[in-house]
Amino acid sequence: MNIEMIEAAEARIGRFVRCTPLMSSPFLDQIAGRRVFVKPECLQHTGSFKYRGAKSAVTALSGDALKKGVIAFSSGNHAQGVALAAKEAGSTAVIVMPCDAPKLKIDNTRALGAEVILYDRETQDRDQIGADLAQARGLTLIKPYDEPEVIAGQGTTGLEIARQAARLGIETADVLICCGGGGLTSGIALALQARAPAMRPRPVEPVGFDDVARSLVAGTLKSNALRSGTLCDAIVTPTPGDITFPIMAALCGPGLAVTDEQCLQAMALAFERLKIVLEPGGAAALAAALFQPGEISGDAVIVVASGGNVDPSVFAMALECLSKPA
Amino acid sequence: MNIEMIEAAEARIGRFVRCTPLMSSPFLDQIAGRRVFVKPECLQHTGSFKYRGAKSAVTALSGDALKKGVIAFSSGNHAQGVALAAKEAGSTAVIVMPCDAPKLKIDNTRALGAEVILYDRETQDRDQIGADLAQARGLTLIKPYDEPEVIAGQGTTGLEIARQAARLGIETADVLICCGGGGLTSGIALALQARAPAMRPRPVEPVGFDDVARSLVAGTLKSNALRSGTLCDAIVTPTPGDITFPIMAALCGPGLAVTDEQCLQAMALAFERLKIVLEPGGAAALAAALFQPGEISGDAVIVVASGGNVDPSVFAMALECLSKPA
Repeated sequence: MNIEMIEAAEARIGRFVRCTPLMSSPFLDQIAGRRVFVKPECLQHTGSFKYRGAKSAVTALSGDALKKGVIAFSSGNHAQGVALAAKEAGSTAVIVMPCDAPKLKIDNTRALGAEVILYDRETQDRDQIGADLAQARGLTLIKPYDEPEVIAGQGTTGLEIARQAARLGIETADVLICCGGGGLTSGIALALQARAPAMRPRPVEPVGFDDVARSLVAGTLKSNALRSGTLCDAIVTPTPGDITFPIMAALCGPGLAVTDEQCLQAMALAFERLKIVLEPGGAAALAAALFQPGEISGDAVIVVASGGNVDPSVFAMALECLSKPA
Repeated sequence: MNIEMIEAAEARIGRFVRCTPLMSSPFLDQIAGRRVFVKPECLQHTGSFKYRGAKSAVTALSGDALKKGVIAFSSGNHAQGVALAAKEAGSTAVIVMPCDAPKLKIDNTRALGAEVILYDRETQDRDQIGADLAQARGLTLIKPYDEPEVIAGQGTTGLEIARQAARLGIETADVLICCGGGGLTSGIALALQARAPAMRPRPVEPVGFDDVARSLVAGTLKSNALRSGTLCDAIVTPTPGDITFPIMAALCGPGLAVTDEQCLQAMALAFERLKIVLEPGGAAALAAALFQPGEISGDAVIVVASGGNVDPSVFAMALECLSKPA
């Protein structure tokens, strides 16, 4: 992985992705005690940054590979990113999802042109199903984060941050990034190292699911004890990636961990002050900026708000925060 | 009013306003039966397009006028736009609001640095209070729509649409605009006449408050029978403006009228598919695009989503639309 791969990804996908703005509000600045700049990747196509990596991976494929199609395992944001990127390339996507995935997510992925294959978590082996399908049809697997072209695509977010921050005259800042497997975090870290080296990228995770933060402290891969039990399901992974972790270890500052309640509060403030829709996991970095100011350095902080694919019932929980004190 | 005034406004305010993107979603295209492009002015500073006009008017003032300060009558989006623009100019804003305005709006306007003066709708004459204050302190009144520099500022939205549509290869389209007094609609109409003359600007209003649509049909100013009774309070005005109406009569296509229920549905779809927060009045144009396709021409439609300053309780009503069929 290197900056040239990220630049090459941007050259391929730059005219398809939305260059999301850096948003701000004096009200958020006041809460955080410093200037807060939010990069709303919820406004990206398919509602999350995942489209960047998927588009990068798909556009890097040969014509022959595109003709055969791609495959991904995901019930979430990665599935929608891969489905749309494949459709736009005139290719086909097979998405392998658990049969208890929310019907809306299954419907959305199908509506984006993908073939959805359901499996039973209890009785079937997802990886075996995928491997059999991939082999039988010659499909290319697009992994959600531990995949160089995916990391390169997510890294385009960092190129944009470097340019946008320079325009605002900001050279030094903590850059807080909602972190699951580390594809977005490591991609941004590589981009910033090359283009805005005084920035400090830092992963933000849910309390109890902070495998990346603990791995950074230990200098070796640590796992989470639990797989579920947070509203921030979009950024829960068992352990950092084999490719992403060494990059993060070399380039990132200490990780931060936020509670579900802080994420809901951050969603409410993003609704009220920025008019954007965030999912809990997509609000984790903003939650850290607003509610853990003592953990952060400098007079400006940049926040990557990674996604907005949230059920209305969860969003309604966040809105309830506005009628009670923080 | 002419295109040169809009260009001059853009030269003054272009680096302060957010150039909002043109967003789209295949899901919205499918509902509308044509491509739908949404310009989310809810993402503008202060949560609505009103910042453009206020910034234009404030930046057109002399140093002496700025020193004395500005005044506006508004309990809504115009108040916040004027407050922020005045603050940024190192000036002061007096905002005259009814004492029964929502506390949150009063607090927000004060937090943006404005002096809020409350009056009793039943016993006091707003215009007299304003005139007395303006005279005593030498304040400059910034009217919400029937004011050339305000119209010029709103018109910068149209310059952006013309450039963005050209980049997408769209020459011909209905451009639907949420319409109150007509400042935004007339400003965009002037900009499109000069820069994208095959576009057809059209005002969208709430059913029962469609004074502009009826005035366009009659060729003369018509009024609304009621002043309140719609969720779309942000775009209710008694009658079109003396300056804005002749521009709209010369340049706009027929008006459209949407129900509150359609606006709530459009808010829900904007939440689900675009991850943006709209207020009911700010969703009126999107509602027309989605739910009145037979009234619209062409294979693409452009929608100006004018604002997102909505109470959580009203937004929760919109979210409920997602659990029931359209």
